[in-house]
Amino acid sequence: MSLKNDLLLRAARGESTDRTPVWLMRQAGRILPEYRAVREKLSGFKELVETPELAAEVTIQPVDILEVDAAIIFSDILVIPEAMGLTYEMIEKKGPHFPKTIKSSSDIDTLKVADPSELSYVYDAIKLTKSELNNRVPLIGFAGAPWTIFSYMVEGGGSKTFSKARGMLYTNPSDAHRLLDMITNTTIGYLKSQIAAGADLIQIFDSWAGVLPPNHYWEFSLKYISEICDAIDEVPITVFAKGAWFALKEMNDLNCNTIGLDWNMDPLKTREVLNSKTLQGNLDPCALYSSFDEIEKETKKMLDQFEGHPHIANLGHGVYPDTDPEKVKCFINSVREFSSR
Amino acid sequence: MSLKNDLLLRAARGESTDRTPVWLMRQAGRILPEYRAVREKLSGFKELVETPELAAEVTIQPVDILEVDAAIIFSDILVIPEAMGLTYEMIEKKGPHFPKTIKSSSDIDTLKVADPSELSYVYDAIKLTKSELNNRVPLIGFAGAPWTIFSYMVEGGGSKTFSKARGMLYTNPSDAHRLLDMITNTTIGYLKSQIAAGADLIQIFDSWAGVLPPNHYWEFSLKYISEICDAIDEVPITVFAKGAWFALKEMNDLNCNTIGLDWNMDPLKTREVLNSKTLQGNLDPCALYSSFDEIEKETKKMLDQFEGHPHIANLGHGVYPDTDPEKVKCFINSVREFSSR
Repeated sequence: MSLKNDLLLRAARGESTDRTPVWLMRQAGRILPEYRAVREKLSGFKELVETPELAAEVTIQPVDILEVDAAIIFSDILVIPEAMGLTYEMIEKKGPHFPKTIKSSSDIDTLKVADPSELSYVYDAIKLTKSELNNRVPLIGFAGAPWTIFSYMVEGGGSKTFSKARGMLYTNPSDAHRLLDMITNTTIGYLKSQIAAGADLIQIFDSWAGVLPPNHYWEFSLKYISEICDAIDEVPITVFAKGAWFALKEMNDLNCNTIGLDWNMDPLKTREVLNSKTLQGNLDPCALYSSFDEIEKETKKMLDQFEGHPHIANLGHGVYPDTDPEKVKCFINSVREFSSR
Repeated sequence: MSLKNDLLLRAARGESTDRTPVWLMRQAGRILPEYRAVREKLSGFKELVETPELAAEVTIQPVDILEVDAAIIFSDILVIPEAMGLTYEMIEKKGPHFPKTIKSSSDIDTLKVADPSELSYVYDAIKLTKSELNNRVPLIGFAGAPWTIFSYMVEGGGSKTFSKARGMLYTNPSDAHRLLDMITNTTIGYLKSQIAAGADLIQIFDSWAGVLPPNHYWEFSLKYISEICDAIDEVPITVFAKGAWFALKEMNDLNCNTIGLDWNMDPLKTREVLNSKTLQGNLDPCALYSSFDEIEKETKKMLDQFEGHPHIANLGHGVYPDTDPEKVKCFINSVREFSSR
């Protein structure tokens, strides 16, 4: 049962490929009318996450419609705090909200390291997706980095400053480490179960990496990402730490295959530092608002900058919801065309 | 009429000082009960900005209470779009909101390069403050960088992705340049009038520098900051471009005296690149949530890292509103004590 298209996995392992593989962060989502049609029938976002048949359906949509080289399981990084005992709500147009947040040591006492079986709906979705994909392309599993999950649990949602989450690193570092440790252990079990269910590659999203000063990033984030990478040797791992430009050297030493780059990072400078890693990214998602001609030009420019280095084409951030799917196709087709020459 | 305390200006010019000067971004504001007492009596934030007597009063409060080495005029960067024809509201606990935003070329046609006299209430506040300060410390004037002002005008407020403002740089670069040019010209006249009214130093805030890819940052932001720096030679200029770690080399060539650093930036690495500039910053504002002992330690560590390089002590971001003023005093006193040894 080998994959018909294994470009992603081969590029992740640093092997040569006939062309550059391409997929998009948030490819399963609001850019597709077919996604919105599924979503509209439901009571909310979480119903979609928690119903394996529907999660599998929207996971496969971009493979059928956009012809990307990988699927990524439709889910949310916040299933981890929920399994640990902290429920979240997804508020339309606003984002996630935790009615209860972590403020103190006794709040942490109410949480547990979750047994992986609590998230069986995710593994069921992975199994269904794998079966329906029928080995056309690899399936990516994922989780949030412990620091990013921690931030949501302490802040209760997004934040301009993340001053509550960052503040705890100064006022109560030992409790911060205790919570990060619980998140890390839950995440490792969760990812291993995703792999057992069929995930071919794992991506770790550290969305709020960029808000930490370098010394805190190493102590409170990279340390735990490193633990996760060390615990998983079944499949290739990608680490996408948005804004962590100051930690590239240290990321080159992570026990992972691929580093995702945001659109701030210069491919030419970055590949010199991350010389032992496959690089993923990093077209500015706003470039997809351009004309078709401009998208081709920008995509070619990006490919040229990664030329000769193991590369997985992607955007430097999740695709923005108001992007025209035809423009997304133009990006994907440009990668196919220009990288196979 | 020379200043009794001119540490800030001498440090900005790279001259030696007996100790490191210190002030805080957002020092005039919600951290002080004395500020909140003034603010509570008013209909809103804008009444405070537009009433010179009150703006002067809250500008001087931190000089009296915290004993900082500089005052910064209490105002808002969004007075510029307002003078150009785009009114803003300040919504409590949410931030600024523009009921009308810039979407098209014809929206830009409705705007004008504002005559500096339209912002006379700011100059009146500066004159009053200068008179009441009686030369105790220098007074800092300021403006937003054109890219940051542009972002607010296009987005209508803050944003997670700034995808509208950033999108226009791809879809309509010539209109983007037209608007940035109008903002730049308005800003130059505004800053010259602040200086004529008595401002001793000018700081330019590029709050949203970090959302641009490097090539766009140079073309759509740094170019205009550079024009402002070239137009002003009356007083020292400080440029604080939050998140612009990728443009440090180019900032070393700006016609300004001081570069402000956010808390992500490593002083030791940064001072090598910005070798021709005084550096300002960059303690993590969250460090002020720590114990007094820890604040002393963190402040000393920061001072040590800037030791031997012209330096103005500050935080790496505006002080957070929920910071205990006694902790702010601890930071200020630590700078005084440790830098004069």
